[in-house]
Amino acid sequence: MDSRLSGRVCHRHCLSIFHHRPDARSVVRQGRVAGGEGGHAVYHQLAGGHVRPDGDWPVRLVQTRLWRRGGGEHARILVADANRDAGGIRHRLSDQLVAREIGPEGKDVTLTDRLALTVPIFQAPMAGVSTPALAAAVCEAGGLGALGLGSSNAETARTMIRETRERTTRPFNVNLFVHADPAEDWPRETAWLKALGHSFAEAGAEPPDALRTIYRSFAHDDAMLAMLLDEKPAVVSFHFGLPDAGRITALHEAGCLLLATATSPDEARAAERAGIDAIVAQGFEAGGHRGIFDPDGHDEQLGTLALTRLLASRCSVPVIAAGGIMDGAGIRAALDLGAIAAQLGTAFIACPESAADDGYRAALTGEAAEHTIMTRAISGRPARALANRFTRLGSSIDVPPPDYPRAYDAGKALNAAHKAKGEAGFGAQWAGQGAPLIRAMPASELMAQLRRELHDVR
Amino acid sequence: MDSRLSGRVCHRHCLSIFHHRPDARSVVRQGRVAGGEGGHAVYHQLAGGHVRPDGDWPVRLVQTRLWRRGGGEHARILVADANRDAGGIRHRLSDQLVAREIGPEGKDVTLTDRLALTVPIFQAPMAGVSTPALAAAVCEAGGLGALGLGSSNAETARTMIRETRERTTRPFNVNLFVHADPAEDWPRETAWLKALGHSFAEAGAEPPDALRTIYRSFAHDDAMLAMLLDEKPAVVSFHFGLPDAGRITALHEAGCLLLATATSPDEARAAERAGIDAIVAQGFEAGGHRGIFDPDGHDEQLGTLALTRLLASRCSVPVIAAGGIMDGAGIRAALDLGAIAAQLGTAFIACPESAADDGYRAALTGEAAEHTIMTRAISGRPARALANRFTRLGSSIDVPPPDYPRAYDAGKALNAAHKAKGEAGFGAQWAGQGAPLIRAMPASELMAQLRRELHDVR
Repeated sequence: MDSRLSGRVCHRHCLSIFHHRPDARSVVRQGRVAGGEGGHAVYHQLAGGHVRPDGDWPVRLVQTRLWRRGGGEHARILVADANRDAGGIRHRLSDQLVAREIGPEGKDVTLTDRLALTVPIFQAPMAGVSTPALAAAVCEAGGLGALGLGSSNAETARTMIRETRERTTRPFNVNLFVHADPAEDWPRETAWLKALGHSFAEAGAEPPDALRTIYRSFAHDDAMLAMLLDEKPAVVSFHFGLPDAGRITALHEAGCLLLATATSPDEARAAERAGIDAIVAQGFEAGGHRGIFDPDGHDEQLGTLALTRLLASRCSVPVIAAGGIMDGAGIRAALDLGAIAAQLGTAFIACPESAADDGYRAALTGEAAEHTIMTRAISGRPARALANRFTRLGSSIDVPPPDYPRAYDAGKALNAAHKAKGEAGFGAQWAGQGAPLIRAMPASELMAQLRRELHDVR
Repeated sequence: MDSRLSGRVCHRHCLSIFHHRPDARSVVRQGRVAGGEGGHAVYHQLAGGHVRPDGDWPVRLVQTRLWRRGGGEHARILVADANRDAGGIRHRLSDQLVAREIGPEGKDVTLTDRLALTVPIFQAPMAGVSTPALAAAVCEAGGLGALGLGSSNAETARTMIRETRERTTRPFNVNLFVHADPAEDWPRETAWLKALGHSFAEAGAEPPDALRTIYRSFAHDDAMLAMLLDEKPAVVSFHFGLPDAGRITALHEAGCLLLATATSPDEARAAERAGIDAIVAQGFEAGGHRGIFDPDGHDEQLGTLALTRLLASRCSVPVIAAGGIMDGAGIRAALDLGAIAAQLGTAFIACPESAADDGYRAALTGEAAEHTIMTRAISGRPARALANRFTRLGSSIDVPPPDYPRAYDAGKALNAAHKAKGEAGFGAQWAGQGAPLIRAMPASELMAQLRRELHDVR
């Protein structure tokens, strides 16, 4: 039998396959794992109730990926039981044979190990709200801090990364927007600006003459890619979609671990096929921009509980649950649903380290926290925000907003005009459905509180 | 100090107050718990880190309820910290002093104790799908089985209760619809029937000339009330709203434990104030009819994770989580979020004991399970169903459906017409967002499987 491939059962009754000799690389490249010698080796090693005799369990090669990280070679091989077609699988928990990453010594390396996390908490990236100070505080407390770079250009983003590195040597996540290029639809934009006109007038201001595409999608931002390949952040995450294979390969070769948001099983499948290392399962509860790839397509509106369980049951990569999680009880629930960690966004906004302004903080810690709404009016893409004057205005407008992020140009201008007159109700006050449970305290204290709560639930 | 009232800290850092001498009844009736001798006794007994000196913690009486059950007298007293007004409470977990029910011996009695459940699983009532056989199988397996009586008259309901009692002596839940009376809006109904016309024609049938109000709301069903007071089911649950105080009192005096569905904190508060014993927190993931009290009012669309945590943090009564829960991992997550149990609906529909027809079962266990939609087209009230020909037709109609349940009269007629021609795609195929995880097996086996999974998660 082929000793170049051996396996062991991981905790979800799946097979871990690893190679530990460089010459196995050719086996993977040639796709010979399926049904041949490699296949025999695979199922000969099964344990934990799944042992089958040699030659009795043909496997079908699904995906392979090889890359270099550090000084060694890593492989990931995904195989599936060739006796079952994908449509017929009802009991997925035990059907899929899953490859895990291993290092050159042959030892299984989990995502949590790689990031040296001491508590299964990811801070949500939250462009415009997260800061180097917030990210670093989360990292220093043993979680994965994050920066939202989607609204920054490459040089501003580099500065944020370096400022974070002055505060922590631990890994952190940088998040990029991978949205489709917006249509520049002059009639639609004119109608939208006209619909906002009376509100600008109330603030004693004029709407902009024209809208601009204020954020460049990472899909086309070569300067951002070059900067990331230079700075080599430990984790890079994608929101709104996936970059092309070239960018993914380049970031992997730079040593970055890649995450992507998925709001449905289809999106998660696309991310896995693209080589993404872990999925952020963003449920309907989540605050801020919804990561759905196609905002004009069908939205299943999957809640965090259902989505997390569906993806944890089916994905071959780890899943992080996001949306509505505010405390240790929610984190524990996420883990019990099969996630390896929980991502919290709203929970951190009232920390002094966040960039939220006073109006936003007051809204979050008062009665306004009880009502959120999913709206496209602020930015052009669906996003969950505290109900405020802007969201109510948006609900009253009959014409569709321009594409993201061109509508956001108008939204920011409207907010700026009203803020200048002391009116805070036109802010982009993103918040998830758990907002009433928010706590205002320094991030390090909040992390300590979350850690205590997480242990208390047991 | 007043020894008639003493307390102890329950697991959620709340005070349990119980009385164990009949003469304490007068104390409660006179509302003297707050701030007086009763108050002193309350906080003198605090433990677990909440001890305050005598006289230092005034309490405010919120609610009292006394009733007789069995041979003894029970009391429930809800007090709150008078130093904090309701709007200012941000850390509810430790603020509220909560009274629990106790029996005549003074021992604390939890809901799970009362129902003698051996596993924290409630079967969702599901009118039209649940059956005495299904309910009894769940009961016999240690959970709380249920019958959906909302679509039945009093005598049919009585028969179902008795059939269930022939199969089990354990407690079960009977569910009633407490919807508002529908408007009989002839223009709207005419327009709706016209919009369905081509679909009836496709099935070679005529639409009904007029619609009927096919279900009587429990709010006005005196025959149903009389039958329930006679049969005395252990648990009675309300969906779509709350009956009046008279019906609630009558059912309590008959010894029934009362549950009500809540889709928001406001609805949960209303249920608590009305004297409901436990809340079913129905999240946006849930299949079937959404229990929202006012379907034309604002819907926060709270996901199961967020809703369960919000209600478990704030309610003075136990919370049962419902919506998207399909397996032991989901049940464990519900408990982590603070629920005392999980209610599962979709998970049981593929059991042979359910009344689901072949078309429904095939849809649930195939590709169609991947897509659900919240629609009013089938019945007039929002309900989550598998996407099928009926839901697609509904999405294409511009006019609003008649009120529930008059629209349901049309929906049932349309389905009957198409089924007669062998077309299953117009069924009311209710399903939650967890439907892809469904398992088809007898209910007793499913319960055993859920029990194993629930323990495996630990």
